[in-house]
Amino acid sequence: MRILSGIQPSGELHIGNYFGMMKRMIEYQENHELFCFLVNYHALTTVFEPERLRRKTLEAASDFLALGIDPEKSIFWVQSDVPEVTELTWLLSNVTSMGLLERCHAYKEKISRGITPNHGIFAYPVLMAADILMYGANKVPVGKDQKQHVEVARDIAIRFNSTYGETFVVPEEEIPEEVATIPGLDGQKMSKSYDNTIPIFCKEKELRKRIMSIKTDSTPVDQSKDPDKSALYEIYALFLDKQERAVLRDRFLTPGLQYGVVKQELFARVWEFFKPYRDKRDEYLQRPDTVRDILRYGAKKARAIGSEYLMKARHNVGVDY
Amino acid sequence: MRILSGIQPSGELHIGNYFGMMKRMIEYQENHELFCFLVNYHALTTVFEPERLRRKTLEAASDFLALGIDPEKSIFWVQSDVPEVTELTWLLSNVTSMGLLERCHAYKEKISRGITPNHGIFAYPVLMAADILMYGANKVPVGKDQKQHVEVARDIAIRFNSTYGETFVVPEEEIPEEVATIPGLDGQKMSKSYDNTIPIFCKEKELRKRIMSIKTDSTPVDQSKDPDKSALYEIYALFLDKQERAVLRDRFLTPGLQYGVVKQELFARVWEFFKPYRDKRDEYLQRPDTVRDILRYGAKKARAIGSEYLMKARHNVGVDY
Repeated sequence: MRILSGIQPSGELHIGNYFGMMKRMIEYQENHELFCFLVNYHALTTVFEPERLRRKTLEAASDFLALGIDPEKSIFWVQSDVPEVTELTWLLSNVTSMGLLERCHAYKEKISRGITPNHGIFAYPVLMAADILMYGANKVPVGKDQKQHVEVARDIAIRFNSTYGETFVVPEEEIPEEVATIPGLDGQKMSKSYDNTIPIFCKEKELRKRIMSIKTDSTPVDQSKDPDKSALYEIYALFLDKQERAVLRDRFLTPGLQYGVVKQELFARVWEFFKPYRDKRDEYLQRPDTVRDILRYGAKKARAIGSEYLMKARHNVGVDY
Repeated sequence: MRILSGIQPSGELHIGNYFGMMKRMIEYQENHELFCFLVNYHALTTVFEPERLRRKTLEAASDFLALGIDPEKSIFWVQSDVPEVTELTWLLSNVTSMGLLERCHAYKEKISRGITPNHGIFAYPVLMAADILMYGANKVPVGKDQKQHVEVARDIAIRFNSTYGETFVVPEEEIPEEVATIPGLDGQKMSKSYDNTIPIFCKEKELRKRIMSIKTDSTPVDQSKDPDKSALYEIYALFLDKQERAVLRDRFLTPGLQYGVVKQELFARVWEFFKPYRDKRDEYLQRPDTVRDILRYGAKKARAIGSEYLMKARHNVGVDY
């Protein structure tokens, strides 16, 4: 099965991403054809600082390579290295009804806030459809908020196929069941939009500060604590094996535990856990040309598959005279 | 000066086009850099018959080559042979406000007729802007109805330059003064939308039928006719030199002239006038591979210039990491 996943190059990965999306990605690449790419064309709808976009693109690539995306097992590339996807976007535009795009959340949300969006924000679901259809992806794992985009891609694929004859695989979304919601610093779901994350690759000082700020209750030191109501416990547990988890549980239940001490321990654990990844990432960041080579190798593989669908689409609409 | 002109591959050229646009084109290619291309991507917004689009593209190319577009003097190509223009379209989309596109005539007109247009119809002014900006065109000769599109391209160029730094030539429209309005069969301006044209390359029988149906007044044969109020006279005059024109004028003013006879003469004249072009066109139509080679030669020249602007734009927005 072909699984496709587009990644914003602007995000700072946090442990919620790691134990959620990243773990799934690694699984996918063992058992499926994984198409994973950095969506810098999409980023252009909101990022107007070229230098920052360039930097973020290389950083995101380094993040994913360090964390285990394998450019041999998977196809890993930067969207703009297969610019043909924009041609497919145009071919799809003509079978995309305006109504379909007007109903899309990102656009509606801008309008409702009184913002006049640029055409990129309006049109990007078509680019996203091209991203998906160009590689014949069967499954697109998405969060609930992205579900609509896969539906748009489905709609467009069905319309294109019925207008011009069978051309594209009609993709399906896959909304992965959360194994468990990973709490953020404040106990809510960890998410960049709540500003409650623990980043994977931040500086030591910042990581310590973040972990020390995990919200705990005011149970006095000389009373027992409830691990099942503690974000600190839950986050810590992610890094522990079964036995270690039992020990931590006991410590919570035994009067005398100081949250501050546990936080210090957690910080050390997290810092240690990501050390090999951090080192690998630093190596990549030191050698941007290596990263570029890897990405271009991926783009070559992506192009080989993408251009088959594109050529078929070009022929089926009649621009190949 | 760089002059750019996009041509719909769907049209059937008529003598109004010939004595208007074609003559200007030929002039341009003598004194300027003429960029002339068949806009088959644009045609996709309304043409959903691939076979027809392919045929029309080759026919339009044969028309223009037969009538004197010189692939050495000018750059003559098919839009989809430089698909990079769609990438530029995406880059421009992010500095194109929705309001700008919502105000465009073609879209507004569809909305006012209660039609839900496809996204291609909404977005095509952005593709048109990319067509213009990609080749650094200074002047775009357009009819009054197309003026808005050049204004959109100007707006987008200015916005792009101010957002990302100087990148594009800001184009200007050129609305050519009509030398004289060429009347159609019914005396109104000759135009496909009035269905009153005399096609250049139709079959003999059809041409005769068309010319015989030129509207004339009911002045009896034995009275003199007013050439200045006669579409028949005006059309005929296009094919005559000064002296011949004076003779025809005299015949109109002299009682006894039969419109039917004049129409027969005009038919013979028109048929004869376009014979060399028709023969040349037939030759091209017999050798589609030659036409394709010529068009691809043009595309190569267009691409060489276009990719310079495109690379600059890619760099300036930051997708080249």
